[in-house]
Amino acid sequence: MTLSIAHLGPPGTYTEQAAFFYVNWLNKTQGVEAILCPYPTIAQSLQAVAVDQAQLAVVPMENSIEGSVSMTMDALWQLDSLQIQLALVMPIVHTLISCAASLDRIETVYSHPQALAQCQGWLEQFLPTVQLIPRNSTTEALQGLEQEVTTAAISSSRAAQLYSLPILASGINDYPENSTRFWVISQNQHQAQAAHYISSTSTSHTSLALSVPANVPGALLQILQVFAQLGINLSRIESRPTKRSLGEYLFFIDAEADLTAPQMQSALPELEAYTEVLKIFGSYNVLPVSPQE
Amino acid sequence: MTLSIAHLGPPGTYTEQAAFFYVNWLNKTQGVEAILCPYPTIAQSLQAVAVDQAQLAVVPMENSIEGSVSMTMDALWQLDSLQIQLALVMPIVHTLISCAASLDRIETVYSHPQALAQCQGWLEQFLPTVQLIPRNSTTEALQGLEQEVTTAAISSSRAAQLYSLPILASGINDYPENSTRFWVISQNQHQAQAAHYISSTSTSHTSLALSVPANVPGALLQILQVFAQLGINLSRIESRPTKRSLGEYLFFIDAEADLTAPQMQSALPELEAYTEVLKIFGSYNVLPVSPQE
Repeated sequence: MTLSIAHLGPPGTYTEQAAFFYVNWLNKTQGVEAILCPYPTIAQSLQAVAVDQAQLAVVPMENSIEGSVSMTMDALWQLDSLQIQLALVMPIVHTLISCAASLDRIETVYSHPQALAQCQGWLEQFLPTVQLIPRNSTTEALQGLEQEVTTAAISSSRAAQLYSLPILASGINDYPENSTRFWVISQNQHQAQAAHYISSTSTSHTSLALSVPANVPGALLQILQVFAQLGINLSRIESRPTKRSLGEYLFFIDAEADLTAPQMQSALPELEAYTEVLKIFGSYNVLPVSPQE
Repeated sequence: MTLSIAHLGPPGTYTEQAAFFYVNWLNKTQGVEAILCPYPTIAQSLQAVAVDQAQLAVVPMENSIEGSVSMTMDALWQLDSLQIQLALVMPIVHTLISCAASLDRIETVYSHPQALAQCQGWLEQFLPTVQLIPRNSTTEALQGLEQEVTTAAISSSRAAQLYSLPILASGINDYPENSTRFWVISQNQHQAQAAHYISSTSTSHTSLALSVPANVPGALLQILQVFAQLGINLSRIESRPTKRSLGEYLFFIDAEADLTAPQMQSALPELEAYTEVLKIFGSYNVLPVSPQE
């Protein structure tokens, strides 16, 4: 059986790069064959898994500079029965791609807004007068570069290679510690089967999201106390609006414990008592991605 | 003296609409004259206040659907000596602006990515085959609409009016409860003077941001306990990455108390004991904006 893996496309996006690494890793470590299926948005790639068009999706969930990817959080909350199988952490190295002979010929730079934001300092120093134009993805930013020699795009070196375009500058991100965390997502009912594809039996992280009854002061405090009293460390707490009214939030929490661990089993009924809706996205391990592979 | 008020431009953005309301409100209630100064980014409008190019800035900080405006949070954290004077809450009503004779002639829709996201359901229902193209602002999306009758933009009805463009559909946002909270920002040293422009002497909210020492489990819990034990309700808790390494966060907190209230005065030294950096952005009131004025 060949697995199909949905991701934000077109080929050459950072998400595709992470998904590509994952396909190779699956093949090398478990002999599993998988193909990549690009989708125009993150939400559509998760939807593809929810409706069984794809077995897995690779989605970005957090960047060390720009923070949480709200589209991923919102889609995970809205779609039912999705499960996290694995986290991938990949260093992000932005490159400036252009057919211009030199930097001083460039008048316009295209990229995804997050990539433009992550190179803001470099752009102000080396290209202070250029116009910055947002695109839906770092790959879409490459369109038309060959025809327009006064334009450039910020994208990955993999994208430059895939589309045979020249790199004018590499490592142009302002923060060298730039990295993105991705989640590999499956359907609930495929959990047992997909669990086959993760290497270790005991997992290190559990992710969940919850909403609290409106207008209950200290609701988040109660939730955090449940974890603290059971000695469970939280590696991430993120608020998202409920979309009902300004000032009402959901909370996304990553706990450093396996769902089957005794302290997590004690935490769950306590959390249920304090929450309106509690969604558990499963337990998983973190795999570092080498972008060269 | 005429005040200059920096905002994300060009004229016709939702931020300009909020700033325009504020200018009228200042004039009506305090007889103060003010002019609007558009800047290409939120960060640049805050920078203008930091370097004394403008006395005040109006910046979006949170939308009820899309959540926190990370550029505002990051710039507030990075720039020193900025102070919140007032919060403005404005309902957001998106309109589809186009010179096309009817919806079925439209092939392309331009807007700011947040506006496109907020109308996703409407677009899928009424314009399922159009191409969605991001722009830096909802106003920038209006460029070229007159020449290209197969294009449309999502923007405010005020923008349609300002640029004399026809509205094809109104209230196209998926969530009717869509509203955005803005902050009016000044420099610290102008606080006494700017405080003159806020109507009431006792304020309802205090905003602050803090970083905690790295790798201290339960650091956020300690912070929340300080507020809970003093009976201070928190209306918002938001994490942002420190940009140093994945999994390290700053926290932005809005407390429902005046900075000079006894319980807030007790909280501050306790917070200092648990934080690495503590930034207090001041106390302020919330003013509802009627977008028609």
